Amino acid sequence: MTEPVAIGETDRLISSDKVEGTRVYNPRGDRLGFIRNFMVNKRSGQVEYAVMEFGGILGIGNEYYPLPWDLLSYDAKQGGYVVDLEKDKLEGAPRYNDGDPTWDEIYARQVYGHYGMTYPLF
Amino acid sequence: MTEPVAIGETDRLISSDKVEGTRVYNPRGDRLGFIRNFMVNKRSGQVEYAVMEFGGILGIGNEYYPLPWDLLSYDAKQGGYVVDLEKDKLEGAPRYNDGDPTWDEIYARQVYGHYGMTYPLF
Repeated sequence: MTEPVAIGETDRLISSDKVEGTRVYNPRGDRLGFIRNFMVNKRSGQVEYAVMEFGGILGIGNEYYPLPWDLLSYDAKQGGYVVDLEKDKLEGAPRYNDGDPTWDEIYARQVYGHYGMTYPLF
Repeated sequence: MTEPVAIGETDRLISSDKVEGTRVYNPRGDRLGFIRNFMVNKRSGQVEYAVMEFGGILGIGNEYYPLPWDLLSYDAKQGGYVVDLEKDKLEGAPRYNDGDPTWDEIYARQVYGHYGMTYPLF
């Protein structure tokens, strides 16, 4: 380790209030954006969505993309998440900018369906 | 429902930036305190600890108790978590007030051990 571990973050854990700003990369290592927040199941404690802001790459700001957790993998070397999604997949993806969606089952099926996943997963 | 659902929160999900302040009760319905933050496993997306601030009941302020997630159950009616812990269990519990602990495996065994649980759970 060449830098000190941030408060509220270790190699394994991250505090819910430090989630925002975690970087997101594509598999080539290009920086796509960053995490805005996680949506956590209150009962199971499992993160269901990571909401990401993809600013730079698409040339649009403040648009939030809810991604099913299983799309993400954590890359300890880069200290961020890797998502294997091409630009066209993101362009047609469910997103919002002003106020949160309802996060109900209909919305979940829409989001998961877009990424070729079945909801519920469990 | 008699009140509107808060933004970033539904019956099922809560946003990582809205976790703070969620109330914690004992099984009798007494309010113990509130949640300060979750500690989330970056890879699995599973909450490992809920950190709770128990202010009023013990007469001490700003002390944070990391609790293994499995100690909590969510009570939709009260909109908060229920923890079945007597006062003496909390009085001797691992806690901190100034800066975060290291959150390493030694610390995890200490916390889980206090509550009669084995770490790792998975």
